[in-house]
Amino acid sequence: MTDVMKAIVQTTEGDPSALELQEVPKPELQPGEVLVKIAAAGVNRADLTQAQGNYPPPKGGSEIIGLECAGEIADAGDTDRSVGEKVGALLVGGGYAEYVAVPEGQLLPIPEGFSFAETAAVIETACTVWSNIVMEVGLKEGETILIHGGGGGIGLMAIQIAKAIGAKVAVTAGSAEKLEVCKKYGADILINYKEQDFAEELKNQCNVILDIIGGPYLKKNMFALAEGGRMVTIGLQGGNKAEINMGIMMMKGISLHGTTLRRRPVDVKAEIVRQTVENVWPMLEEGRVKHHIHEVLPLADASKALGFLEASSHTGTLVLEP
Amino acid sequence: MTDVMKAIVQTTEGDPSALELQEVPKPELQPGEVLVKIAAAGVNRADLTQAQGNYPPPKGGSEIIGLECAGEIADAGDTDRSVGEKVGALLVGGGYAEYVAVPEGQLLPIPEGFSFAETAAVIETACTVWSNIVMEVGLKEGETILIHGGGGGIGLMAIQIAKAIGAKVAVTAGSAEKLEVCKKYGADILINYKEQDFAEELKNQCNVILDIIGGPYLKKNMFALAEGGRMVTIGLQGGNKAEINMGIMMMKGISLHGTTLRRRPVDVKAEIVRQTVENVWPMLEEGRVKHHIHEVLPLADASKALGFLEASSHTGTLVLEP
Ligand SMILES: NC(=O)c1ccc[n+]([C@@H]2O[C@H](COP(=O)([O-])OP(=O)(O)OC[C@H]3O[C@@H](n4cnc5c(N)ncnc54)[C@H](OP(=O)(O)O)[C@@H]3O)[C@@H](O)[C@H]2O)c1
Ligand SMILES: NC(=O)c1ccc[n+]([C@@H]2O[C@H](COP(=O)([O-])OP(=O)(O)OC[C@H]3O[C@@H](n4cnc5c(N)ncnc54)[C@H](OP(=O)(O)O)[C@@H]3O)[C@@H](O)[C@H]2O)c1
Repeated sequence: MTDVMKAIVQTTEGDPSALELQEVPKPELQPGEVLVKIAAAGVNRADLTQAQGNYPPPKGGSEIIGLECAGEIADAGDTDRSVGEKVGALLVGGGYAEYVAVPEGQLLPIPEGFSFAETAAVIETACTVWSNIVMEVGLKEGETILIHGGGGGIGLMAIQIAKAIGAKVAVTAGSAEKLEVCKKYGADILINYKEQDFAEELKNQCNVILDIIGGPYLKKNMFALAEGGRMVTIGLQGGNKAEINMGIMMMKGISLHGTTLRRRPVDVKAEIVRQTVENVWPMLEEGRVKHHIHEVLPLADASKALGFLEASSHTGTLVLEP
Repeated sequence: MTDVMKAIVQTTEGDPSALELQEVPKPELQPGEVLVKIAAAGVNRADLTQAQGNYPPPKGGSEIIGLECAGEIADAGDTDRSVGEKVGALLVGGGYAEYVAVPEGQLLPIPEGFSFAETAAVIETACTVWSNIVMEVGLKEGETILIHGGGGGIGLMAIQIAKAIGAKVAVTAGSAEKLEVCKKYGADILINYKEQDFAEELKNQCNVILDIIGGPYLKKNMFALAEGGRMVTIGLQGGNKAEINMGIMMMKGISLHGTTLRRRPVDVKAEIVRQTVENVWPMLEEGRVKHHIHEVLPLADASKALGFLEASSHTGTLVLEP
């Protein structure tokens, strides 16, 4: 093996359209890591935020964008894995490349019958959704969950996992087309946030909210939460600041959570991966949860892929192939 | 039995000094309730807030102030309890009286060796502390907890339970005397909030915060929370409004909870009582958790008792005896 590889490099800081395929050094393995030869890399909104300069990788993380991939183990390092083993991987970064170094605990099996592209398209969303709606805020059968941005990659995964758990699912989205897709994937209550006030529609009814908007929705979300409701915020697409009335928190007995999958410690990530494979992989293999790939593009088209996200003109997930 | 009793009645709305002992109808039993002849009633800060007109009883609750008592069962209603059984009781209201009706699930045994006054002094604080620091935010051995108002009734109970769990305990209080008492009860880190900035002292170190201040402390509390930290707010002594930066919630992976024991559904209260008796009663009986009665006053002196709270000149709990 040579010690260089092709990877996406940002040539102008903060400009998502300035992504070029260049030669860079291959990653070096740390103890407990394996080297994966990437066959497909998933595209996430966080990639766009990172390319815009607003989501710097955590200390020690790769500067290369990309939070999930699938491929073959090219070097098993000091682990008991085998070269040639087909795997998916949850990444802190480095997915927009030919090779990436991954802590063993962040490897996932390929779901039965899944291609590399299909695998790469579900890892980040499945881990994010399971760790948040189940592990963080304990969604239970019979409860109502509100999923903001139901037509996005996270949204469609969340709708299906919540339905598989036996919850009632409400979603918001900005167009009738996206709401139609949400319905197809199982959503029970469809709210066009450009035309309707979700807080009025769902007043005191939501046991759980999966929030990607942040500040501007906080007051409305607290209004929509039921007694004992739990909200987890995983995105701040509307901004991070809000006024909060803590009296309402107390009177309704609610809790507000914030998480980022990428910043969790390695042992927590490994536990998230373990539980996601245990619970969500069977749902994928039995077809109870469907993946939804918007388009597969060559790795060199990374800027184009982020452009789809910028325009919010996609439904589901985009995948890049080196 | 006659159908009247003596109880504390507020003669001027919103004025805590206008509390008089008057004759009122005895409470009528609902299904599942017992009538307790009160020997001692605990005094809580919520009683003052209620007398000031800022904490109305929940719908259907007694208008009479008082959240905890101890005494004897005078009428077992439709339950299997026995008349004459000595009990403690967690109340939604009605404690400042000769008799009170209580759902059976809210009865607690008298801890071995405890008087009625001692029992009445620990129920509300023990249930509040256990339900919040353990059931709501899962304080664990080896973690650090910050307890605001360490010298108050809740504070002293929280210090001791947290120490019994094996946590490291930091407290705030407004005087050297109160901090000395906190230390005697086991606190490890003493912070005089009038002279020190607790957020600077405890930056990123608190796994759990028990908050009674609300709005004005939110930003500082979030600063003091560690990665994965949890805060539960049970009082709003400083006010309910604050600006919140949800980005910090996400980056630190923290959660903010609010609860009021009184507003919890009857079945949740019963579970809280069950777990408190199972876990805290042995601590009380073995002396690992000590109660601290500031003074026992006759029931007619209810206004005087609330005056102590208003002046914050007490340490520990006040008790009234009919
Ligand atoms: N914290 C974590 O660990 C973590 C992990 C993964 C993802 N995330 C975050 O989760 C969010 C969603 O990610 P994604 O990959 O699903 O992105 P995505 O595919 O772009 O989906 C976002 C969706 O949000 C909708 N939307 C925009 N403004 C909205 C509003 N005001 N109300 C309701 N919906 C709105 C958009 O639909 P319309 O065009 O119809 O508005 C779009 O479908 C992002 O903020 C991402 O950064 C966080
Ligand atoms: N949500 C619930 O279920 C629930 C149940 C029980 C109690 N509570 C609430 O819990 C709180 C405490 O109750 P309590 O019975 O313990 O009252 P307490 O005995 O009056 O204690 C309150 C303590 O707070 C301290 N304090 C005041 N301002 C402070 C500040 N800025 N920073 C730090 N400490 C401060 C006071 O000490 P200094 O004089 O030294 O300042 C006092 O010792 C109250 O707000 C009460 O309403 C809530």
